[in-house]
Amino acid sequence: MSKRKLKLGHRITRSNQRPDMAGFAVSSTSVCVCLLEEMNGTGNLMDFLDEPFPDVGTYEDFHTIDWLREKSRDTDRHRKITTKSKESYWELIKSLLDAWSGWVVMLLIGMLTGTLAGVIDLAVDWMTDLKEGVCLSAFYYSHEQCCWTSNETTFDDRDKCPQWQKWAELMTGHSEGAGAYVLNYFLYVLWALLFSFLAVSLVRVFAPYACGSGIPEIKTILSGFIIRGYLGKWTLLIKTVTLVLAVSSGLSLGKEGPLVHVACCCGNLFCSLFSKYSKNEGKRREVLSAAAAAGVSVAFGAPIGGVLFSLEEVSYYFPLKTLWRSFFAALVAAFTLRAINPFGNSRLVLFYVEYHTPWYMAELVPFILLGVFGGLWGTLFIRGNIAWCRRRKTTLLGKYPVLEVIVITGITAVLAFPNPYTRRSTSELISELFNDCGALESSQLCDYVNNPNMSRPVDDIPDRPAGPGVYTALWQLALALIFKIVITIFTFGMKIPSGLFIPSMAVGAIAGRIVGIAVEQMAYHHHDWIIFKNWCRPGADCVTPGLYAMVGAAACLGGVTRMTVSLVVIMFELTGGLEYIVPLMAAAVTSKWVADAFGKEGIYESHIQLNGYPYLDVRDEFTHRTLATDVMRPRRSEPPLAVLTQDSTTVEDVETLIKDTDYNGFPVVVSRESERLIGFVQRRELTVAIKTARQKQDGVVSSSVVYFTEDNPQVAEACDPQPLKLRRILNLSPFTVTDHTPMETVVDIFRKLGLRQCLVTRSGRLLGIITKKDVLRHMAQMMNQDPESIMFN
Amino acid sequence: MSKRKLKLGHRITRSNQRPDMAGFAVSSTSVCVCLLEEMNGTGNLMDFLDEPFPDVGTYEDFHTIDWLREKSRDTDRHRKITTKSKESYWELIKSLLDAWSGWVVMLLIGMLTGTLAGVIDLAVDWMTDLKEGVCLSAFYYSHEQCCWTSNETTFDDRDKCPQWQKWAELMTGHSEGAGAYVLNYFLYVLWALLFSFLAVSLVRVFAPYACGSGIPEIKTILSGFIIRGYLGKWTLLIKTVTLVLAVSSGLSLGKEGPLVHVACCCGNLFCSLFSKYSKNEGKRREVLSAAAAAGVSVAFGAPIGGVLFSLEEVSYYFPLKTLWRSFFAALVAAFTLRAINPFGNSRLVLFYVEYHTPWYMAELVPFILLGVFGGLWGTLFIRGNIAWCRRRKTTLLGKYPVLEVIVITGITAVLAFPNPYTRRSTSELISELFNDCGALESSQLCDYVNNPNMSRPVDDIPDRPAGPGVYTALWQLALALIFKIVITIFTFGMKIPSGLFIPSMAVGAIAGRIVGIAVEQMAYHHHDWIIFKNWCRPGADCVTPGLYAMVGAAACLGGVTRMTVSLVVIMFELTGGLEYIVPLMAAAVTSKWVADAFGKEGIYESHIQLNGYPYLDVRDEFTHRTLATDVMRPRRSEPPLAVLTQDSTTVEDVETLIKDTDYNGFPVVVSRESERLIGFVQRRELTVAIKTARQKQDGVVSSSVVYFTEDNPQVAEACDPQPLKLRRILNLSPFTVTDHTPMETVVDIFRKLGLRQCLVTRSGRLLGIITKKDVLRHMAQMMNQDPESIMFN
Repeated sequence: MSKRKLKLGHRITRSNQRPDMAGFAVSSTSVCVCLLEEMNGTGNLMDFLDEPFPDVGTYEDFHTIDWLREKSRDTDRHRKITTKSKESYWELIKSLLDAWSGWVVMLLIGMLTGTLAGVIDLAVDWMTDLKEGVCLSAFYYSHEQCCWTSNETTFDDRDKCPQWQKWAELMTGHSEGAGAYVLNYFLYVLWALLFSFLAVSLVRVFAPYACGSGIPEIKTILSGFIIRGYLGKWTLLIKTVTLVLAVSSGLSLGKEGPLVHVACCCGNLFCSLFSKYSKNEGKRREVLSAAAAAGVSVAFGAPIGGVLFSLEEVSYYFPLKTLWRSFFAALVAAFTLRAINPFGNSRLVLFYVEYHTPWYMAELVPFILLGVFGGLWGTLFIRGNIAWCRRRKTTLLGKYPVLEVIVITGITAVLAFPNPYTRRSTSELISELFNDCGALESSQLCDYVNNPNMSRPVDDIPDRPAGPGVYTALWQLALALIFKIVITIFTFGMKIPSGLFIPSMAVGAIAGRIVGIAVEQMAYHHHDWIIFKNWCRPGADCVTPGLYAMVGAAACLGGVTRMTVSLVVIMFELTGGLEYIVPLMAAAVTSKWVADAFGKEGIYESHIQLNGYPYLDVRDEFTHRTLATDVMRPRRSEPPLAVLTQDSTTVEDVETLIKDTDYNGFPVVVSRESERLIGFVQRRELTVAIKTARQKQDGVVSSSVVYFTEDNPQVAEACDPQPLKLRRILNLSPFTVTDHTPMETVVDIFRKLGLRQCLVTRSGRLLGIITKKDVLRHMAQMMNQDPESIMFN
Repeated sequence: MSKRKLKLGHRITRSNQRPDMAGFAVSSTSVCVCLLEEMNGTGNLMDFLDEPFPDVGTYEDFHTIDWLREKSRDTDRHRKITTKSKESYWELIKSLLDAWSGWVVMLLIGMLTGTLAGVIDLAVDWMTDLKEGVCLSAFYYSHEQCCWTSNETTFDDRDKCPQWQKWAELMTGHSEGAGAYVLNYFLYVLWALLFSFLAVSLVRVFAPYACGSGIPEIKTILSGFIIRGYLGKWTLLIKTVTLVLAVSSGLSLGKEGPLVHVACCCGNLFCSLFSKYSKNEGKRREVLSAAAAAGVSVAFGAPIGGVLFSLEEVSYYFPLKTLWRSFFAALVAAFTLRAINPFGNSRLVLFYVEYHTPWYMAELVPFILLGVFGGLWGTLFIRGNIAWCRRRKTTLLGKYPVLEVIVITGITAVLAFPNPYTRRSTSELISELFNDCGALESSQLCDYVNNPNMSRPVDDIPDRPAGPGVYTALWQLALALIFKIVITIFTFGMKIPSGLFIPSMAVGAIAGRIVGIAVEQMAYHHHDWIIFKNWCRPGADCVTPGLYAMVGAAACLGGVTRMTVSLVVIMFELTGGLEYIVPLMAAAVTSKWVADAFGKEGIYESHIQLNGYPYLDVRDEFTHRTLATDVMRPRRSEPPLAVLTQDSTTVEDVETLIKDTDYNGFPVVVSRESERLIGFVQRRELTVAIKTARQKQDGVVSSSVVYFTEDNPQVAEACDPQPLKLRRILNLSPFTVTDHTPMETVVDIFRKLGLRQCLVTRSGRLLGIITKKDVLRHMAQMMNQDPESIMFN
């Protein structure tokens, strides 16, 4: 009964409000008295503001763009060009150039990205080897290049050519012995420290945005956030240089993520050549999506995988047009890279592998186990890394980024040198782990006991018992695995460029290779077991440990990033065969499921959250039962919404409102009493308009009435002072939802239309406003996260 | 001056309206008199309608679904399951099963699609060969299978094994001579006529929806249209059977498009197993998108290409979740097909090719020329085919579909038999054209003059002068090209299952091979020309005519369908190497540009338009300057919008409104005077609610007031008759835009949110409504197309 009473009370309150509304209706029926005189007086001024204001349509730093508005601005521009193109041949040519500029930008991005990737590859090769020794014939040759030019060496010890000297050999003349080992060790660590110190100093001094992988920020930017300078020329330059230094220093990091950032910087650079892209934040983001594809394309030599990565992982708004252009950019980049040929094998891909034996159904069990491992690794890495990064943000640790990098590099170098599998660069390690053991392989991993009676073709070697080298390798790999797992958690997020594709893949590849060798030996020694009986005859080549390494790498990468399709496609492009898609898919999906069970976010989303970027994830399902009315501002306890009225606010009122509040814009209503919404006006445009009017338009003073109607308002006395017409800047089609709209629909609308704010009405009366920030805060609240960490606006 | 007067007049009209509003305000302030008595009387009935109505939420045939509503219904369902799952273990298991049902459906679709594709392949092989002869050892063997089992034959004449007999040989004993030729010819035509007659009769009698390629309809269905029975079991069965018959009849059509339809039918079939999918049209479409990917995956053996085809060409709403699931379904389908192994070579792909020589920059010129040819062919085909289909729709021709099929089959068979390149099945032809001439090739196309002095590895044969066989082949190919071009235009769109991938590819492959041989011979005979000098030494293998055929096929397919990325990826999966992506890309993009210059629509969009399906293309850019007010109903001359008021319409009024109009729903306003919008009610739900209330709720008579407010309305006399509360079915969050919203934004909103209708307001007052049909009609008007051809709602 009490509930019913409450209802009744509520109703009575509402009916009490009604007279106000009636009052409004009366007040708004008494319109325009000195209308005709008015019109004669201001007719020549009425369209004063129809010319565009300077600077209108740009956004401030750390603000969110309005996709719908950007889109409609581009349509306007396009319409203008189309109309003009009918006027003269010159305009027609200009319109054609405009239509083609998208492809030109893609071509340029592809070429520059490919070139940069090639240069980075070459420089990294050289500097990584510089830690161990130098080429006497030409100091700028890497170890491999140095020994290529040597024609004295045989195939076997190609990497021991006389032109290449280790530091100890060069300085003391001895290449063996404890003294030489210690000297080499010392110089290895010294070089590593030097490189990382240079890297972190350059980042600190010249381009703070050049640190990290860049993918979380690029995801945020692509979703419509403005971070000025993040994709600037300076960042491009410094990131390219420091990426080389960071990778060469031997830290447990990769170049793949930063390459995406570099590619996006290139994209942004070329955007500035064409006003179509530089002046429209929405169009610019289309170009950046394509650039991200080009970045992954050159990182792995996988153009299709790059496009899918951009689609699945990075992009927010990805129309079909962008799909084609991304593909074009990715192809151009890949082929530019191939023309530079940094790996010296005319192969496009980073890790080229060719397996000769099929896989068998029973092998799915170890593959799925690797998937589980990948998922667990992903969870461990994300939790550990986020905890460490949070500590960095909140404690003294964050105050000494240079020291942190130096210490981590020191620890990495000291621990890495003794183990041959961690001493070399991580990509070389992965490459070796992926490889199948051919007959000519000299690696320790391929030290199997050969059966001298067998003479088989080179590429089809049966399973053999492992030799001592393999057992040593297994121990070293196990140590390397633990080392990589621990050090990577601390490395990612330091103030140097650092990607985590390569370290994640390394962890997976090591684990996979260990499992692969174990299965292989088990199959060899127990081929009478039921599970092996069906597919593994004695003397057959039934298990490929390299494939396990690849599956493991895919699983671990999947666990960390939660990529699935793009991951499998990248791996497919590496192997070039559909044959191994099922193992890869099985591992990738298992890894994703396992990792998802512990937490839905991948590493990029976690870093976005950690940094409080206003990113509205397309994948999060919002399933709570809240309504727009629960989220909108003002809340019940707050002061009423700051609104303008269509014809009764003065210039002074507006200026006070602008000064007192920091809202991005203000709704315009018919009158304060009726609160019927007629439009929305941007703060920025309002400021500019009033400033311009005060300077240029006579008679506009503080007490002038600002009006947004099509016709002049009625003015109480002798039509004085001059009113200011601002209909030009009024957005007559603000986005509205009713207060009863479920928040899931509101979230969907914000996501799909890329809104910045949305007004809430009930029966046509303005009740409040919901901004993207409110939506994000509400979603965070619903997920019990820290709602205050979201960046302003 | 006259303009200003008009404005003034308009203003005066508006100010004249104001008193009405004041009147409304007054009338609505005098609320509820006998409120308390009222509440006591109806309290127990008030929540009567809070239980769901049966059948609510389904759509009628040829209606459009509301994506937002479907999505929110699914979220509700999901929320219920999540809440329940905390109650007991059994509910937890049920919720897990529900979460996994998506993957189960994908698995089932993949397996059934793969199996059906395998069965179709085997049946087509057998029946195509049946037109020429029969296998004596087992009549159900195709020519190839028949001769496999034969061990007497040598490699060379494997296809002339004794077990396989042509009809003439079997009947008369003579395999050579004019009599045998005529008899074979006659039987070939007869079989073809029989097959096609069977096909068209089955389609006519049992499943009219089984005709055509199905892709235009599937695109429309995926965009949110309901065509009952289009994806039914009956269609599945008949389409599978008639597809075999149609392809076997030797008509110029392929099985790829229909396979997509078959896969979607499978998808729909398995949807009905899970209420999650069968009861939600939005979720169902996610499954269908994945099924389309599985269809293309088995059509070409290209799973990644299939997913991209679904994404680029077919799907409308493609969330990332669907991307993963599509990929899974495509993989399962491909591997099921491989397990059935219909091509007998354990290859997954339809046309497996392996080229041994790289391509050279200069070859881009002929490749781009092939692209131009592809674009022109695409334009010619689309225009010709659409003109013919329009004639079929409007003239007597359409009345005799069986006769048409018989006549076209007759012409095709009679013309095809004499030419060896048209007599065989089109896929065999393409396969031969794609092939590089190896040393062991016995085909006429590989009849080059051999240099006896040369002894080179089998797969690296230098360019040689063409022999007489090649010249004969060139003539026959040229005739085949013309024949295919003409007959395909008339074939596509007949009342039998017909895809156009294969015929288009055949046209391109023939043209490409001809160009390829020409370039090859030019390079051989003129290797001192500057363009050849750099890359084509004498005795080198510099031109691969098979690659030209492949590039031509890609170009022609691209010209017809306007696919780009998915096309290149499919071709990439066929060759399995990145090497040839640039030629393919160049040709595909050129072909798209050339074809786009003549008309933006691909063949599927053209057929969608021809049939007037309400399809809102994501790719069409709407660039006109119209506003929502120009499109909304009612127009100025029309009667006012049919609305309900929140608390003053009687049951009788509502029933009259439902009877007199055929609108899908009605806006609910505060009162006729104020026109302030409070919600939207669906016609279907209104009908059901009133019917149910009349049957089950006492006191509801024709004069009962229907009210949508939370509280009972005031009733004039002694609270009688019983009012009917319908708030339960009122959608309180109808989608609104203002009358000043540019149509480009409205189109964008309709597309991205998948709306069915949208209400138009100005300052909170309801002005009109825009339905998807209105949007489509307006877009068609703007593009000067026939606006009346769009299907009703």
